[in-house]
Amino acid sequence: MKEPRAVDLRIDARWIVPVEPVGALQDHALVIDDGRIAALVPMHEADRDYVPRSRVSLPEHIVIPGLVNAHTHAAMTLLRGIADDLPLQAWLEQAIWPREARFVTPEFVHDGTLIAAAEMLRGGITCCNDMYFFPDAAAHAYELTGLRAMLGLPILDFPTSYAADADAYLARGLAARDAYKHSPKLAFSLAPHAPYTVADETWTNVVVYARQLDLPIQTHIAETQREVDEARAATHETPLARLDRLGATGPSFVAVHAVHVDDADIERLAAQRCHVVHCPGSNMKLASGAAPVAKYLARNVNVALGTDGAASNNRLDLFEEMRLASLLAKVTSGDAASVPAATALRMATLNGAIALGLDADIGSLRVGKAADLTAVRIGDVETLPMYDPVSHLVNAVSREHVSDVWIGGARLLESRQLQGVDSAALASRARAWQQRLA
Amino acid sequence: MKEPRAVDLRIDARWIVPVEPVGALQDHALVIDDGRIAALVPMHEADRDYVPRSRVSLPEHIVIPGLVNAHTHAAMTLLRGIADDLPLQAWLEQAIWPREARFVTPEFVHDGTLIAAAEMLRGGITCCNDMYFFPDAAAHAYELTGLRAMLGLPILDFPTSYAADADAYLARGLAARDAYKHSPKLAFSLAPHAPYTVADETWTNVVVYARQLDLPIQTHIAETQREVDEARAATHETPLARLDRLGATGPSFVAVHAVHVDDADIERLAAQRCHVVHCPGSNMKLASGAAPVAKYLARNVNVALGTDGAASNNRLDLFEEMRLASLLAKVTSGDAASVPAATALRMATLNGAIALGLDADIGSLRVGKAADLTAVRIGDVETLPMYDPVSHLVNAVSREHVSDVWIGGARLLESRQLQGVDSAALASRARAWQQRLA
Repeated sequence: MKEPRAVDLRIDARWIVPVEPVGALQDHALVIDDGRIAALVPMHEADRDYVPRSRVSLPEHIVIPGLVNAHTHAAMTLLRGIADDLPLQAWLEQAIWPREARFVTPEFVHDGTLIAAAEMLRGGITCCNDMYFFPDAAAHAYELTGLRAMLGLPILDFPTSYAADADAYLARGLAARDAYKHSPKLAFSLAPHAPYTVADETWTNVVVYARQLDLPIQTHIAETQREVDEARAATHETPLARLDRLGATGPSFVAVHAVHVDDADIERLAAQRCHVVHCPGSNMKLASGAAPVAKYLARNVNVALGTDGAASNNRLDLFEEMRLASLLAKVTSGDAASVPAATALRMATLNGAIALGLDADIGSLRVGKAADLTAVRIGDVETLPMYDPVSHLVNAVSREHVSDVWIGGARLLESRQLQGVDSAALASRARAWQQRLA
Repeated sequence: MKEPRAVDLRIDARWIVPVEPVGALQDHALVIDDGRIAALVPMHEADRDYVPRSRVSLPEHIVIPGLVNAHTHAAMTLLRGIADDLPLQAWLEQAIWPREARFVTPEFVHDGTLIAAAEMLRGGITCCNDMYFFPDAAAHAYELTGLRAMLGLPILDFPTSYAADADAYLARGLAARDAYKHSPKLAFSLAPHAPYTVADETWTNVVVYARQLDLPIQTHIAETQREVDEARAATHETPLARLDRLGATGPSFVAVHAVHVDDADIERLAAQRCHVVHCPGSNMKLASGAAPVAKYLARNVNVALGTDGAASNNRLDLFEEMRLASLLAKVTSGDAASVPAATALRMATLNGAIALGLDADIGSLRVGKAADLTAVRIGDVETLPMYDPVSHLVNAVSREHVSDVWIGGARLLESRQLQGVDSAALASRARAWQQRLA
């Protein structure tokens, strides 16, 4: 008989949905040690095999892997709702870019990212893929809050308050990476803004750095029909074909939006094992269009989910994006079986981890992965009765049902209260920015 | 100098969005007397003119008219999530109708409606338009919970556990109306299920009763392309043209769904001042299609919002439907200005009241209307910063931000706690039904 093993933590839950394999386990225990999942077993096996130093009981909850928000501009929480009901180009050119030029500083990014991280944690998101100016200020905010993050180092060909030209963007970004590259929960990618804002020469440069430093590349691409039409008029190829020609595509390439693609583009994404980040809320709000998610899935393209920034959403809410992804795919494909609940949940967890190259560590509740967990309470009238926990996660649950969140085994949300974050101070900072920006 | 008037209640709020007129009032007071709105004035005027017997302060809230859920099958909460990812006909024929045949009793309707009413109240809905079997059992549940409701008396040409034939449906429905017609918060309509389930002779009969008793008619219509195709094949006319020919349409006709309509149908709805209830969540989930909301609004057709039943949604959440109505209209019309926030809010309040013929009493915060109010808390990080309260109501707020609800001046939700409803008992009833139905 084996001696029971001493471990840090045991979490008993009514339901556990590990994502891998598909389905829901009833009355199981997650055993956590040294920040990682040591076991996922029926409760009686946990009784026999483990002696936990602490225990948590979640008798009317579903535990899932922490959600992965695969595309956001975190600091833009400070611009939440500042301009609505406008199409992408007008929204960018009239509402967003002028305000960014005037107000975006390291302090703006730091405070906006703090607010975003708090919002995401309360909504069950444990990892995000951020893309914004002053990534060093954002990195500091993520360290303070404990959220796992990949920071996209922004690259543009026009000057902003952050950098004067493409070389300066690259230099500032790589300096931020040097400063934070040993931070255990931070990762980095190169983030040229979009094909239409970054010239060939810069893209070529980005590809060289990405290879030398082994960094993923993420970019907004084919977000609007106008973007694709103008690209075709200028270069007689789609934006994706152009990036393929320039060597940017491949298994570390993350195509954000990818709404207006032709069959050759889809084939290219599939053949080169690129990743797509679908942002249904933002694409709908800006009237950009509906990405061909059913076609991507049919070709086994890895599709993750993103909230985009709070200025175009206006929430960093991956439960909402799961539901929107399922609903939008159904109504646009005419097939009610399109993007069923289990697929939407996988898009918001494991597929996000795969897109970020972090699936060895996060995205599902497999033994050995980090203990990034989200507990959802299903005891209220809004989630009763319940016949299928996976269906409920997408169709009935909202982010307010998130009760507890762990990242790397550390409990960062407990009974809806953020741990180690002063929520009142955060709210007053948000209000101070509101006064300045209004 | 006028003597200050003694009144029942004064509510001070940081923001009040009365719907009529459009926009947000800062630091105003709602003065309530005898269950009705006596005044909506700046706080200093309220100080001068009224002496309230009780006062409520809502310093970080937006107060809006209670939401009107213009189409639901309340008791179907008991079937929430029992079958997903299926198109309408398969969903009805394989999943829903067989279970209804086996389980639907007055007790089922009573308990399911109680759960629905609790969910709706907690989500800021103060009035719903219900359509289900055993409306007398539903009426009793609404009286217990205090929700305002219009009960659609169901009519079908095929037998169910509720009635054997169309005459029996009508007789049972009218008996329920007789029993509850003096209930102050209940109203009634005739609810033939759909053109394809009710024959011409029954429709003609319904029209006679509707005229004699001055009752509105509500029906599901043009929900799927298949329905319209089969109707055209059978009668060489659209379902709406058929109902027009049979005399059912007019200013008391409520067309639920109205997704697949041609230009002549839209013209008919506009010319006859019919009402449309748009159910974006249900239409998307069942892949039924997207109603031409932008066209309806351009022709001044009154468009209200409904959740449909929890079996096809899976939530009775009008904040979600506001957001979906705005997002779906934008993405399907390609116009980001389509269904802006103020329009979505009007659809969920005043337009619903107009569709139900109740706009003299509810739907906006006008003096003389009933004090049906929903308070939304905007102090959390998810709703900070805030530049435009109306935008926030649609784009950032969710139903969990609803803090307080009054109906006819009675506070039925206080700091998210239902008053006069035993939430724990309700949850255990839901679980008991879950065991029986699973």
